Amino acid sequence: MGALMEPSWGTSALSPPSVPMELHAQNREKLVQALRENLAASSRSIRGFVFLQGGEEQTRQESYFAYLFGVREPGFYGAIDIASGQSLLFAPRLTPDYAVWLGEIKPLPYFKERYMVSKVFYVDEIMQVLTDHSRESEKPLLFLLYGLNTDSNNFSKPAVIEDMEKFDTDLSTLHPILTECRIFKSELELSLIQYANDVSSQAHIEVMRKTKPGMKEYQLESIFLHHVYMYGGCRHCSYTCICATGENSSVLHYGHAASPNDRILNDGDMALMDMGAEYHFMVNGKFTKDQTIIYNAVLKAHNAVICEMRPGVSWIDMHKLAEKNILESLQKESILVGNIADMMSKRLGATFLPHGLGHLLGIDTHDPGGYPKGTERPKEPGLRSLRTVRELKEGMVITVEPGCYFIDALLSPALEAPETSDFFNQKELVKYKNFGGVRIESDVYVTSTGCKNLTNCPRQTWEIEAVMAGAPWPLDSIFYQK
Amino acid sequence: MGALMEPSWGTSALSPPSVPMELHAQNREKLVQALRENLAASSRSIRGFVFLQGGEEQTRQESYFAYLFGVREPGFYGAIDIASGQSLLFAPRLTPDYAVWLGEIKPLPYFKERYMVSKVFYVDEIMQVLTDHSRESEKPLLFLLYGLNTDSNNFSKPAVIEDMEKFDTDLSTLHPILTECRIFKSELELSLIQYANDVSSQAHIEVMRKTKPGMKEYQLESIFLHHVYMYGGCRHCSYTCICATGENSSVLHYGHAASPNDRILNDGDMALMDMGAEYHFMVNGKFTKDQTIIYNAVLKAHNAVICEMRPGVSWIDMHKLAEKNILESLQKESILVGNIADMMSKRLGATFLPHGLGHLLGIDTHDPGGYPKGTERPKEPGLRSLRTVRELKEGMVITVEPGCYFIDALLSPALEAPETSDFFNQKELVKYKNFGGVRIESDVYVTSTGCKNLTNCPRQTWEIEAVMAGAPWPLDSIFYQK
Repeated sequence: MGALMEPSWGTSALSPPSVPMELHAQNREKLVQALRENLAASSRSIRGFVFLQGGEEQTRQESYFAYLFGVREPGFYGAIDIASGQSLLFAPRLTPDYAVWLGEIKPLPYFKERYMVSKVFYVDEIMQVLTDHSRESEKPLLFLLYGLNTDSNNFSKPAVIEDMEKFDTDLSTLHPILTECRIFKSELELSLIQYANDVSSQAHIEVMRKTKPGMKEYQLESIFLHHVYMYGGCRHCSYTCICATGENSSVLHYGHAASPNDRILNDGDMALMDMGAEYHFMVNGKFTKDQTIIYNAVLKAHNAVICEMRPGVSWIDMHKLAEKNILESLQKESILVGNIADMMSKRLGATFLPHGLGHLLGIDTHDPGGYPKGTERPKEPGLRSLRTVRELKEGMVITVEPGCYFIDALLSPALEAPETSDFFNQKELVKYKNFGGVRIESDVYVTSTGCKNLTNCPRQTWEIEAVMAGAPWPLDSIFYQK
Repeated sequence: MGALMEPSWGTSALSPPSVPMELHAQNREKLVQALRENLAASSRSIRGFVFLQGGEEQTRQESYFAYLFGVREPGFYGAIDIASGQSLLFAPRLTPDYAVWLGEIKPLPYFKERYMVSKVFYVDEIMQVLTDHSRESEKPLLFLLYGLNTDSNNFSKPAVIEDMEKFDTDLSTLHPILTECRIFKSELELSLIQYANDVSSQAHIEVMRKTKPGMKEYQLESIFLHHVYMYGGCRHCSYTCICATGENSSVLHYGHAASPNDRILNDGDMALMDMGAEYHFMVNGKFTKDQTIIYNAVLKAHNAVICEMRPGVSWIDMHKLAEKNILESLQKESILVGNIADMMSKRLGATFLPHGLGHLLGIDTHDPGGYPKGTERPKEPGLRSLRTVRELKEGMVITVEPGCYFIDALLSPALEAPETSDFFNQKELVKYKNFGGVRIESDVYVTSTGCKNLTNCPRQTWEIEAVMAGAPWPLDSIFYQK
């Protein structure tokens, strides 16, 4: 866990790190380097500007712009001169009204110093500044961001300013190169991701300790959000919290507007918490036998994947490894019968694990770059849900989040289909009718020789039971001697 | 305060009311009535459908649609047959994948019963159903929602479906009539607004009790959000929390992305909390003399307005009444000198109170309808910021939120301008240089003979000091006997 402090106003808290602006300066250098190499390789001249538009008021900062400039104010543009490496920021010219409603109007040197860029101008000077900077007779060349996010299926929107026709524009070069830069994390980025993991782990442990039958699911969400903000300084959760208990835990994206975490917790329920990171525990603090079986099947798959992760390994193979482990556990418990290789070739794993094993992680919950040019989305059940099919490489951060669910909408057709029906032992399977599901997630960094798990929280059933009973986390070494 | 309960898992909590679907049924009846009267008055035949489109996935439900149908799921359309009064809902036809990712696919009768409508169909049946229902030879007539929101300056977007050219459409009739319906609250609506007030008041009192020097502003925000969600069941705050302390309290919309409530609280600071409702208190629990002066000036204005509010009163006059009270208090303390009527005619009040006195409140934080056809936005400072210029009428809910701020960007020009400079006693004024500002808000319902304040929280400085010292709220009667 990160640095702990004990402030005068209460519970122990992690100290929120300020995001160092060197991080963004390094990101810009890395991009310029990659762009120059790309231009040289295709015998193009080293000229032009990377040109990005930040987010508008009221929305989250655009993530590519945030990656390169770290600016939190809305209405900015940023440029990088590829030849010189100079970075330019363009700030909106605010009206005096702004000072009354939104606060002091900062002068340009404030932004130059704060964001560590070469120069700062106003947005209405972009045309003039870029023309002046491109000591050439031809039109200035702008590399704009345009490409498909394979995760959201949205296209990133190229920057727009007035008089766009006075520039040459290149829409195809920047997006794949910048996306590739984002996939490999620097030391500074890694320490922020580690901090987010630590805050989130602490908050989950707080939730475990406070959970009692009779509460509503959204109260667990509230405890989590309060803890990450109050003690971790994290204002926004990166996605809608999934607080699924009982049979709801088989709904993969539970918690949305039409199912707003509003079920009452029952004694004996299992809770699947996907908030910042994912955790699993028992509402009453004790696992039953059936719950232990499925929980351990998923934990075994989770651990097997992390043991195998290293540069050069295919993510598709990791997904299949998780499936295989889960099928083996279900076979061992006589829920399934037959040959594992046959089950694999019939894609039976997708009945229990219908989502992908994990996704790239960074500024975005689902970081881009999962399907670079030349790769194709698989067609088979389960595999087609993978958010990336890449080979692992050093510097990637990826989630490992296998699950095992009992979903009627998937089990019914599998029980009927002649090619899969014989695999099921209906007598055992029926016990899991309203079981719901289990998912276990870790955020993992790929090193040169293997990987490092950034998530540190109770994982063994007995560790979870100890923490829910009030033991401090990490557990004292005495717990590990029995 | 609403019904209190003491559940087994902790602090006392308000019991979240379920929104009764009768509320929306009543709203539809009211609209049909108003539309029929309008059509009859202009000798048009009583025919056609009100036709609205609900919100898309991931966004908040569109508020006009929510007003009429109360549907929380995304992707719906709704229609009301003006002649028969029948209400029709159209649900999206979900793919089997939905069941795996987002949960059980509900059958149409579920929505019919839940939302108390006459009939439910699928979205892809709209064309057929509306044609069948309009037993006429001509094209079916759709009344679509199109009009300017005078608050956000956005236009509401008319519903869109395929084959729009097979309908006659009317874009001008519905918006003003439906907006007018929303302005006057029913008993059922009023009880929900009262609940939101109760939850928010409780949460503010919790914040007051936990505030200590050394905390960060965002920690007060976190305490507030946790309390309204954990104990009030309110998942979303309707706007970004303003937690302004010290000199930040003169920034009217502090708390936005570029100023994210991250200042550390000092001993002696005053705190302006605009979260759900607005409250003001001292970080260390004690008001100084200067703070008492400005706080009481605003409280006097707040109380004077509420005393005068009744049907027939002009909101512009209420704003001027608040200004006048504040100017009088500042004159009494020798911060200002000269004749109040002269100050009023020079619009000096806008230097200290630059925002409007309040706004219509309902499903939206700023409910629409503030500037109906035929009314114009005033041009004078202060008055031009008013979000409505209407006469008060029974059934309206409006916020009363006067403030008094010391804003450099407004004081400097007023001190220089020959027509206002003589009003200032610079020797006194300089004491308030980094004072910040005070704002006090109540949500008020206009009755047939006066008004009812829906907000119940400590307002007198000594009440605030007692609650911050740990006294329960409402205070015991013994406090009021001294």
